[in-house]
Amino acid sequence: MKYYAKPLNKLINELSKLQGIGNKTAQRMAFNILDMDDRDAFAIAQAIIDAKTKMKYCSVCGNLTDTEPCAICSDTERDTSVICVVESPKEVAAMERIREFHGMYHVLHGAISPLEGIGPEDINLKSLIVRLQENDVHEIILATNPNIEGEATAMYIARLIKPSGITVSRIAHGIPVGGDLEYADEVTLSKAMEGRRSL
Amino acid sequence: MKYYAKPLNKLINELSKLQGIGNKTAQRMAFNILDMDDRDAFAIAQAIIDAKTKMKYCSVCGNLTDTEPCAICSDTERDTSVICVVESPKEVAAMERIREFHGMYHVLHGAISPLEGIGPEDINLKSLIVRLQENDVHEIILATNPNIEGEATAMYIARLIKPSGITVSRIAHGIPVGGDLEYADEVTLSKAMEGRRSL
Repeated sequence: MKYYAKPLNKLINELSKLQGIGNKTAQRMAFNILDMDDRDAFAIAQAIIDAKTKMKYCSVCGNLTDTEPCAICSDTERDTSVICVVESPKEVAAMERIREFHGMYHVLHGAISPLEGIGPEDINLKSLIVRLQENDVHEIILATNPNIEGEATAMYIARLIKPSGITVSRIAHGIPVGGDLEYADEVTLSKAMEGRRSL
Repeated sequence: MKYYAKPLNKLINELSKLQGIGNKTAQRMAFNILDMDDRDAFAIAQAIIDAKTKMKYCSVCGNLTDTEPCAICSDTERDTSVICVVESPKEVAAMERIREFHGMYHVLHGAISPLEGIGPEDINLKSLIVRLQENDVHEIILATNPNIEGEATAMYIARLIKPSGITVSRIAHGIPVGGDLEYADEVTLSKAMEGRRSL
């Protein structure tokens, strides 16, 4: 690393702090940036600054947004009676990509994990309860991740909300479409069997 | 892409302009940047701006530097009688990593490629001839890449310089043909230096 001049070294260092960017990739990126037009390189820097200063969490749903409330929460054509609960903004984007869900979202920013000391009060859950009290919501779809933390979180929220009479559902677990039964792990296969529906 | 707010979209877009960074990686990087402390994220932006504004090419050897001349050209302990000719600054770093070469460098910023219309006048070659005329150089080591363009460039420079009586050598083909000098492991690179032959 000491074979490069300081500003280049510094750039490689900063880039390699990014998740999943190793030193080699950081070097390649740094040289690539130096090869670019000034304008293009400064555009990257500006985009980082803009994203950091302009992107906030929506006060209603917790999704990443540059408006308040976010584009989804302020979209009058969406169905406000259904709320899909996800762990992170990335999953809102994943859901939006299927173009089938037209309800609202609630982003928890994490999942309950007693092992890591993350309790219900550490995730964005209280504001969901407030939303349920203030709005006419008929269904809550729990789309937390299908792992221990995600399941625990879904169970916790289900138990919390069910007494209010709102329908609480969980997205189905099973064999991915296009996947091979042969290669499915045992838990997935077991979930797929459990969730079988009559044809 | 339209599932994200504008500043986030813009950041993903800008990052995916980097060589070897696909859309998925750019998304991951963008979310990672948003998750960071403001200070860390701004440090990346600042590092890009600093690298672009402070890094120049050394007027003597053409290497990337933030001083004029570069640290290697101004190092009085180095052997000015040997010049190692490489295609790009990345290769200077690769050579320095083996800690065996204590001479000077000359960075061509490219290689002769008639197919791509890159002739001897399009690379940083004239300044090498000037250096040879003004300094007491005994040997030129041609460390261009072992591919068609690199070989053609080496042959061209060898023919150009040989009449002056200066020893012209080529690093050995210890480096796998078709490979990139930048990615050569240190032992291979070291062997290649050791096995250089006079042309």
